[in-house]
Amino acid sequence: MTPDAEALDREDPLARFRDEFVFETGGPLYVDGNSLGRLPKRTRERLALLADEWATALVRGWHEWVELPAEVGDVLAKSVLGARPGEVVVTDSVTVNLYKLARAALEARPGRAVVTDAGNFPTDRYVLEGLDCELRLVETDPVDGPSAAAVEEACAPGDVALVTLSHVDYRSGALADLPAVTEAAHAGGALMLWDLSHSAGAVPVGLEEHGVDLAVGCTYKYLNAGPGAPAFLYVRSALQEELRTPIQGWFGQRDQFAMERPYEPAEGVARFLAGTPSVAGLVAVRAGAEIAGEAGIDAIAAKGRALTACAFELHDALLAPLRVELGTPREPARRGAHVAFRHPEGWRICRALVERAAVVPDFRGPDTVRFAFPPLYTRFADVREAVERLRRVIERREYLEVDATLTRVT
Amino acid sequence: MTPDAEALDREDPLARFRDEFVFETGGPLYVDGNSLGRLPKRTRERLALLADEWATALVRGWHEWVELPAEVGDVLAKSVLGARPGEVVVTDSVTVNLYKLARAALEARPGRAVVTDAGNFPTDRYVLEGLDCELRLVETDPVDGPSAAAVEEACAPGDVALVTLSHVDYRSGALADLPAVTEAAHAGGALMLWDLSHSAGAVPVGLEEHGVDLAVGCTYKYLNAGPGAPAFLYVRSALQEELRTPIQGWFGQRDQFAMERPYEPAEGVARFLAGTPSVAGLVAVRAGAEIAGEAGIDAIAAKGRALTACAFELHDALLAPLRVELGTPREPARRGAHVAFRHPEGWRICRALVERAAVVPDFRGPDTVRFAFPPLYTRFADVREAVERLRRVIERREYLEVDATLTRVT
Repeated sequence: MTPDAEALDREDPLARFRDEFVFETGGPLYVDGNSLGRLPKRTRERLALLADEWATALVRGWHEWVELPAEVGDVLAKSVLGARPGEVVVTDSVTVNLYKLARAALEARPGRAVVTDAGNFPTDRYVLEGLDCELRLVETDPVDGPSAAAVEEACAPGDVALVTLSHVDYRSGALADLPAVTEAAHAGGALMLWDLSHSAGAVPVGLEEHGVDLAVGCTYKYLNAGPGAPAFLYVRSALQEELRTPIQGWFGQRDQFAMERPYEPAEGVARFLAGTPSVAGLVAVRAGAEIAGEAGIDAIAAKGRALTACAFELHDALLAPLRVELGTPREPARRGAHVAFRHPEGWRICRALVERAAVVPDFRGPDTVRFAFPPLYTRFADVREAVERLRRVIERREYLEVDATLTRVT
Repeated sequence: MTPDAEALDREDPLARFRDEFVFETGGPLYVDGNSLGRLPKRTRERLALLADEWATALVRGWHEWVELPAEVGDVLAKSVLGARPGEVVVTDSVTVNLYKLARAALEARPGRAVVTDAGNFPTDRYVLEGLDCELRLVETDPVDGPSAAAVEEACAPGDVALVTLSHVDYRSGALADLPAVTEAAHAGGALMLWDLSHSAGAVPVGLEEHGVDLAVGCTYKYLNAGPGAPAFLYVRSALQEELRTPIQGWFGQRDQFAMERPYEPAEGVARFLAGTPSVAGLVAVRAGAEIAGEAGIDAIAAKGRALTACAFELHDALLAPLRVELGTPREPARRGAHVAFRHPEGWRICRALVERAAVVPDFRGPDTVRFAFPPLYTRFADVREAVERLRRVIERREYLEVDATLTRVT
């Protein structure tokens, strides 16, 4: 018995948001919106307007543009992050922002260790490996992700400066128990930094409610801001004056255009800005965050749980018999908006989906075919169709016919 | 006797490049192209195409986009920087890139000092102030900029890791003697890092020819890549393996999409990439660099010298009698493409130019009205018109009638 996707689509309160996005006629079935989200129609319009503004206002455009990192940060804070105004800025990349905040935490608590998950997203681990500090790697369950107990244990010696984890695991889609893990880090005297790349715009975060210290995240996944759009960073108000950014730049200077002075950090979270931010990127992030705000993050998350539940039912009916294992927690409160289907031939199955079934999924090593269902534009019928095509590719062994040596990208 | 601007325009071999850019009918006279360059027509077209590509290729666009930081770096290397392929990447901001390279230099030569010019651009000084090292500030002439002699003296103790200076001074427009200063730094055992923000696209740099070690620079001035477009960084081939970036990110990892490994730097200059770069920014940088390449950097520089010479003649005839001082070196080989007119009422004069004379200049403290003449789209007639309007504002004391308290932006 498989779910009635058409009925679910008819009752979907977010169905109208699909029309906010550009779809190519006859395009493939896209289930990789957590690598790169779709182009919103309003973003295309606003980027064209920005080009006009650049052409006519020229440098005078900066009178407004200069406020965008904080303004768009406030939009994100309110619409998807559960943070207060003045706690979020949009700037740089996740990598650079994580570096800034992790180094700041280490400088504020010198000589201590940093704790992360051995399976954390690569760039997070690389940044931390590059810091001059002890890096404590917690081993976590590949399906369930990092646990509060593991964090508590790692922090027990009381010598940890910072715990940093991904809120939603990029492979399994497991949603960490953010309140409990944050509490465990705090109990051990550490600051808690969440990477929200795979959760921002998919599930509520509640940064203020749960006393999170620091966070970073990207905007080109569920926030649909486009390839390489700037990331965000969050610093809890009470911590802002205590922390120093290692990358002191003119956008983080107190009086940016009084140029003749030594560096003095700007008030609040703006001190974590560095160089000139991408205005086009900021315009796109604002548009994406607005759409999420209009839909409402709770409604988005509810639909995300329903879409993934639909995928689970379909898995049990159609994929389990083909020895596809589910690599995502079944408990609705413990997952984001993507699911992991595990199969020893995962890589070739991904290639076959692209080449022979007009599905664009993603592969994550060693064996995961990853399907994302961004709630703003995914229909239940899309979930069913994607799973059915996956079944067909496996059943007919079409994956044996593809070239498995192609380079992986994203 | 003032120059015959019309005759100069008729003979200008670069005159046709003006048509590459978007001009607003009835727009003001823009002499701030070294804060933000103009929108090239082809950039507008390509950004619209990129939006289509995002909408249709979606994540598959990354098969091509992932190469852009290095590809566009190579275009810049060849067209304007005089560097070799594989020595330049386009990524992040000047601030972040300067931080990466300066820290890498300090790590390679631990315990040593960093030398810069006390009048260097603010964000450069802020970055250096934020490093955990001795910062030696060389005092330099406000018109002539940093000298080789001053650098030689500062490096004499042999305890300097890095000398970092701006190639063209952001206030005076002085063009540093790059070969001599680089040699002085090397004689003192230091690495030399040039900030090319005000020279890239305006004058030849000759990074390879002059044995420069490191460089950074921005692309939204003479390279016309738009507000907040990504910056570039250069690392001399021979140094690339020796230096480690402090910000280890997945775009600088050897095998980026094999995600299960510890960090291992990519080969060559790519190791200085960090997070996901702005694709829109890269597309715009490529377009801007292409136009510069088509015009030829030597032809651009020759026209820049002619435009500024024209401004000098006009100054001597029209502005000197009004006690406007020239703040830019008169020697053609010692200046970039902008000029500094100094007057005690500089700030109010700038405001009056904007509000009453339809000129958009820039102000740089304490007393400089800065006019930039980007050779690709500036006519000699524009230079004459801008200086004449400046004369009128001063002569009629119109600057006494403006509100001097407005916030400065850029």
